[in-house]
Amino acid sequence: MAIVAHSFSRYVNGDHNIETRIMAQSKIQTALQQFTTLLGEQNVLVSDADKKGYLVEWRDKYFGQAAAVLRPKTTEEVSTIVKIAKEQEVALVPQGGNTGLVGAQIAFDADRQFVVNMSRMNTVREIDTDGYTMTVDAGVVLEAAQNAADNADRLFPLRIGSQGSCQIGGNLSSNAGGTNVVAYGNARELVLGLEVVLPNGEIINGLNKLRKNNTGYDLKNLFIGAEGTLGFITGAVLKLFPKPKGTQATILAFQSLDQIGQFFTKAKSYAGDGVTGFEVIPHIGMEFLEKHTDVRNPVETPYPWYALVEISSQHSYEHAENLMMELVEEGMNEQQVSDGVLASSQAQQTAFWHLREQLSGCQKGEGGSIKTDVSVPISSLPTFLPEAIEAVKAYMPDARPCTFGHWGDGNIHLNITQPIGMDADEFLDHWDSISDIIHSVTLSYGGSISAEHGIGVMKRETLSETKDPASLALMRQIKKTLDPNGIMNPGKVL
Amino acid sequence: MAIVAHSFSRYVNGDHNIETRIMAQSKIQTALQQFTTLLGEQNVLVSDADKKGYLVEWRDKYFGQAAAVLRPKTTEEVSTIVKIAKEQEVALVPQGGNTGLVGAQIAFDADRQFVVNMSRMNTVREIDTDGYTMTVDAGVVLEAAQNAADNADRLFPLRIGSQGSCQIGGNLSSNAGGTNVVAYGNARELVLGLEVVLPNGEIINGLNKLRKNNTGYDLKNLFIGAEGTLGFITGAVLKLFPKPKGTQATILAFQSLDQIGQFFTKAKSYAGDGVTGFEVIPHIGMEFLEKHTDVRNPVETPYPWYALVEISSQHSYEHAENLMMELVEEGMNEQQVSDGVLASSQAQQTAFWHLREQLSGCQKGEGGSIKTDVSVPISSLPTFLPEAIEAVKAYMPDARPCTFGHWGDGNIHLNITQPIGMDADEFLDHWDSISDIIHSVTLSYGGSISAEHGIGVMKRETLSETKDPASLALMRQIKKTLDPNGIMNPGKVL
Repeated sequence: MAIVAHSFSRYVNGDHNIETRIMAQSKIQTALQQFTTLLGEQNVLVSDADKKGYLVEWRDKYFGQAAAVLRPKTTEEVSTIVKIAKEQEVALVPQGGNTGLVGAQIAFDADRQFVVNMSRMNTVREIDTDGYTMTVDAGVVLEAAQNAADNADRLFPLRIGSQGSCQIGGNLSSNAGGTNVVAYGNARELVLGLEVVLPNGEIINGLNKLRKNNTGYDLKNLFIGAEGTLGFITGAVLKLFPKPKGTQATILAFQSLDQIGQFFTKAKSYAGDGVTGFEVIPHIGMEFLEKHTDVRNPVETPYPWYALVEISSQHSYEHAENLMMELVEEGMNEQQVSDGVLASSQAQQTAFWHLREQLSGCQKGEGGSIKTDVSVPISSLPTFLPEAIEAVKAYMPDARPCTFGHWGDGNIHLNITQPIGMDADEFLDHWDSISDIIHSVTLSYGGSISAEHGIGVMKRETLSETKDPASLALMRQIKKTLDPNGIMNPGKVL
Repeated sequence: MAIVAHSFSRYVNGDHNIETRIMAQSKIQTALQQFTTLLGEQNVLVSDADKKGYLVEWRDKYFGQAAAVLRPKTTEEVSTIVKIAKEQEVALVPQGGNTGLVGAQIAFDADRQFVVNMSRMNTVREIDTDGYTMTVDAGVVLEAAQNAADNADRLFPLRIGSQGSCQIGGNLSSNAGGTNVVAYGNARELVLGLEVVLPNGEIINGLNKLRKNNTGYDLKNLFIGAEGTLGFITGAVLKLFPKPKGTQATILAFQSLDQIGQFFTKAKSYAGDGVTGFEVIPHIGMEFLEKHTDVRNPVETPYPWYALVEISSQHSYEHAENLMMELVEEGMNEQQVSDGVLASSQAQQTAFWHLREQLSGCQKGEGGSIKTDVSVPISSLPTFLPEAIEAVKAYMPDARPCTFGHWGDGNIHLNITQPIGMDADEFLDHWDSISDIIHSVTLSYGGSISAEHGIGVMKRETLSETKDPASLALMRQIKKTLDPNGIMNPGKVL
């Protein structure tokens, strides 16, 4: 795959001089001994068999190497690990559920890097129902956090495909997005307080449950989205919300992107943040679903575009349903919506979301697929998407864009499926060229080359080529200030 | 007043050696000449009469001094000002509407400091109705921004007492709060993109309109709430919201804080972020209002506590009203709410908010008033408030707490009015002691000593005494990294 054809040497701070290397080896051995004394042998994985699950990326895109995998249980252990790493000049790669999409959680140097997997730090420390907060360890699995909130009659709204295995620490380190952002914001917006181990081993205990706190610089947002390059997130206070009393979902059909745009504006003015989902689906996506999964397009007549729209109400299911019916009726009267199917049961709502979730995977059945994760201003989507698709088609006329995702956030996964009959590997060799084309159009709209997946190793070069120089310089200064020895997740982001 | 009795020398990076002083004077003259060449004489105010309005704080709490007041019109001019300041080793104090409550916007050194007032940068650059964004200069007055959004059938929800004169740049630099935070978040949450002039004069053009953008470290939140110590905010992309179609407001009476707490939880579960106001008012506040303003307590029987509750609906006025009626009825059935008055017209809703807005000022009629701005977890308010009040009473039995504010944010202005008959100045000499008592109880609840007003000069010492050392050290490192020459608002925050 083109994206991994680059030599990994660029992610490795290797020592090429033999004497230095021997000294480094001795430091690694010392570090290993100290880690083992700290955590016990069962929590320092050194054999290839034990390490394997922590080194391979789930799509087989990155194959990592590490001196060992460390599994701390407490914040104090993480702090000691960092102090040892600093002393022995080895590097640490924080890892949650290992579900990241840009390789940030993968170690690439058996000589110097240790994976620090957070899975054992998996306690929900407290739920404050009247305060609408939940305090969790970084290693709590997202779905476990959702369930804990649900059991306390509260909602933790982060909703992403990997929620069964990704962890809160990873969600925050990557500022995860997903399908609920349109109403509740990104992971960043869901955090009140943060506990962080700095690259010098000191612990910032910022686990406050405060809605307002203007006592100095906002440190927490430095670590959220930094992909583990500025410190370890070990715990967080998350915002909870009242559980909606009812939701209604629909799949609507549209003749054009302009009509989707107009209908989104109408939906927002009808229901505000009660619009808890607005996902766009192209016709080719429905075709792929019908061909490769058990999912069927619920709209009988084919249309170029569809949207899965969800409305939630704090008041009642009936209120959500009435809002949706009024909204759809008006959208049809004004020629925005062409057709549609309203979920007639909770089961059908679940089926609609199942359809949406299968979209990413079903492209596999068609061979190679080049994936992007771009965003533009919401109002630009109707002009941006055709222009980007046209630019790709100009490069490869038979490429098949499968363009879906989070309309309400201006964040579209403009994925390109290979032409019918082409060899998959041959197609994937065009990964960089096709991404570059899409990124170039994205940037011309003031957009982002990574809306929700982050930078990791995958987009490091692209970032350095496209970010404005003043921001990039400031990012580098901040990295150097916080992590002068470069022990936190080296080779990622910057 | 006790709070200004400290010598201002601590805010001044003075040069005490005479030769150094003469050299510095020459640099100031050079800077002044360069500023005048850049901006024209009319925008470099040097006479005492011209400078006066920019140096006096609106409550006469701080009396500033500055070499001159600069009034730039463009971001490029701000950038050049910063480059000159760096070269000539003079310092800059950014100032918006000069409404801040902690002295962050005041210059304190006629020998070295220049006020940079942003009032001439007052253009609403763009409103994107379908994208729900507004791009503004930093010097746009908050009310002008609200009106511009309103004219485009959108809502910019920041709502604070000084909105007629405060500016967006100051709102963001101080991460302003106010009465709408319960539904829409602090100023920080309302920003998508930021344009910043760094202390080296470089411009970060981060004016993106993106809802999702994970391309590296979150720089924008470093500048929001930094009170101008890390750089100049010159422009911003703000989030807009659909305008609610109807609001309903009520003033409810409560026997206890516990009952307010229970009712707040119920209101959230009924209406979620449809609860757009939840302000607590003590009985003594109603007494002060009736004595010193034209406002009357709408609830006929006296109760210890009241709350102004506002519910908004995207759907209709009737929906907001029905929600409120159901909610209040249930609150009464469950013995949470004791009495109350529902607004019978839009005019009465406005009158209820007028009552709330008069609360801060009406304390003046009772003599001296010591003001705090603390927050605790929302669920702690019913135990925290009596404990803090009791601690103040133990110190000064006849002190009269007038405790009001933003229940829904856990942010209460626990103000202490002087005992009847005491000399006001004598009472105000207890400012530090009484603040310390309240802050100490606040910290024991994991609270904040400055929920929404910031640090400025007023709470700089308290911050250094109460903030955890790891956070404080990191803040200092960041300041030093971004502003190694200390030219941006020296003596503030840190």
